[in-house]
Amino acid sequence: MTYCVGMVLEKGLVLMSDTRTNSGVDNISVFRKMFHWRVPGERIISVMTAGNLATTQAVISRLEERTKAPEDRQNSLLGLPTMFQVASETGKLLRETVRETQDNNGSRGRGRFTASMIVAGQIAGMEPRLFMIYPEGNFIEASFDTPFFQIGETKYGRPIILRGYDREMSFEDAVKLLMVSFDSTLKANLSVGLPLDLMVIARDQFEPTHARRIEQTDPYFDAISSSWSDALRAAFHSLPDYSFYQPHEDAE
Amino acid sequence: MTYCVGMVLEKGLVLMSDTRTNSGVDNISVFRKMFHWRVPGERIISVMTAGNLATTQAVISRLEERTKAPEDRQNSLLGLPTMFQVASETGKLLRETVRETQDNNGSRGRGRFTASMIVAGQIAGMEPRLFMIYPEGNFIEASFDTPFFQIGETKYGRPIILRGYDREMSFEDAVKLLMVSFDSTLKANLSVGLPLDLMVIARDQFEPTHARRIEQTDPYFDAISSSWSDALRAAFHSLPDYSFYQPHEDAE
Repeated sequence: MTYCVGMVLEKGLVLMSDTRTNSGVDNISVFRKMFHWRVPGERIISVMTAGNLATTQAVISRLEERTKAPEDRQNSLLGLPTMFQVASETGKLLRETVRETQDNNGSRGRGRFTASMIVAGQIAGMEPRLFMIYPEGNFIEASFDTPFFQIGETKYGRPIILRGYDREMSFEDAVKLLMVSFDSTLKANLSVGLPLDLMVIARDQFEPTHARRIEQTDPYFDAISSSWSDALRAAFHSLPDYSFYQPHEDAE
Repeated sequence: MTYCVGMVLEKGLVLMSDTRTNSGVDNISVFRKMFHWRVPGERIISVMTAGNLATTQAVISRLEERTKAPEDRQNSLLGLPTMFQVASETGKLLRETVRETQDNNGSRGRGRFTASMIVAGQIAGMEPRLFMIYPEGNFIEASFDTPFFQIGETKYGRPIILRGYDREMSFEDAVKLLMVSFDSTLKANLSVGLPLDLMVIARDQFEPTHARRIEQTDPYFDAISSSWSDALRAAFHSLPDYSFYQPHEDAE
């Protein structure tokens, strides 16, 4: 499994992904699921992946290959004129890759080898944008109303993001929010695991403002994980108490 | 969809279920998913259901019918000697009902019409017990290490239960915890909805200590829902702040 989140803030983009892949619970490896490409001063584009690892690696390799062929820049992440076209081209590659493997496996391949992706980035002169790409190659874009996307094991970590997200929040608060969301997910699903990859992209910088890998022994993640239990417990006890014997009219 | 939780505490059992059923998002109804049977002073048994409504209603009707046939008490919830046999008999009925509908529909029925159940209760002279029953009719029992079961849309509301559950907690705190868990689920999945059914069964009482329906306009649920947003935000801000520029060694 996988857990990746991409978020649009007023200040820019924040991305986090885990790195655990598994084929059964007894075959666990660490693979990067967050990638980025940039043209200094002009664009930065990041892709996060969930789903079949052979599929996502093939798509990433194809995206990468295109950036190495300078004569064919028009289809490359480094040359496409808009983020919309970047999402569209990535979706097309994803659909083709999934289809190819499915077709090669005949009826046994049906419905398998799928993957989904989050594409985030900014090109000079335009806004930072965030897309979620489905295995079918079509995609949706984050909006004011839905300013973040999750892929993979999305449910455990969703309530805290729904409650904690604020478009005006600082990058530091957004990272803290994502760490809490990841911690809840890690606690509930063994197939999502540390280390995590983190990237913050400030508006109009066209480079990672902050990028690091959060390792197994990261003291900040440990602190969040243990403080969050205490903080949640305190929050819980701060709620009005339930009573069997009152009609609760005064509970408002 | 559905969300039901059953919990074993030192003091007894706490059960909560939603009541929304849907067949598509444009066909939503309210159906009870929590049922109970009792022999005063001797036993109380509750069943909660998730999954195909025709299946679960058929199982509940069959369970109910057996309790009405006094000459055939040995297979009835009111006559079976142990909670283990209650779970076993309920599982058998569930499996038979699922199979029957599947077989009646030939190959189109495969994998459909499934349901799962939580069975909770106590029979005099024995401990309160809690079981989760799979569509295949087999089942597992709650233990000291896994003292609660969820069925239906389980993921959104799970992290808070994992953090908040304490075997020694009061019934009131357990109800509060479940309300928070249900609120997170309701906020994330439209197909889980109010009203909720709540039942508390104190050890050795063999009757509902407290049972009520939490309606759309329940002031306590409203208070929990709005206070929880504030409390979570406060909890979040109480966590150590993330910083881009420190190595975080002091964050412990």
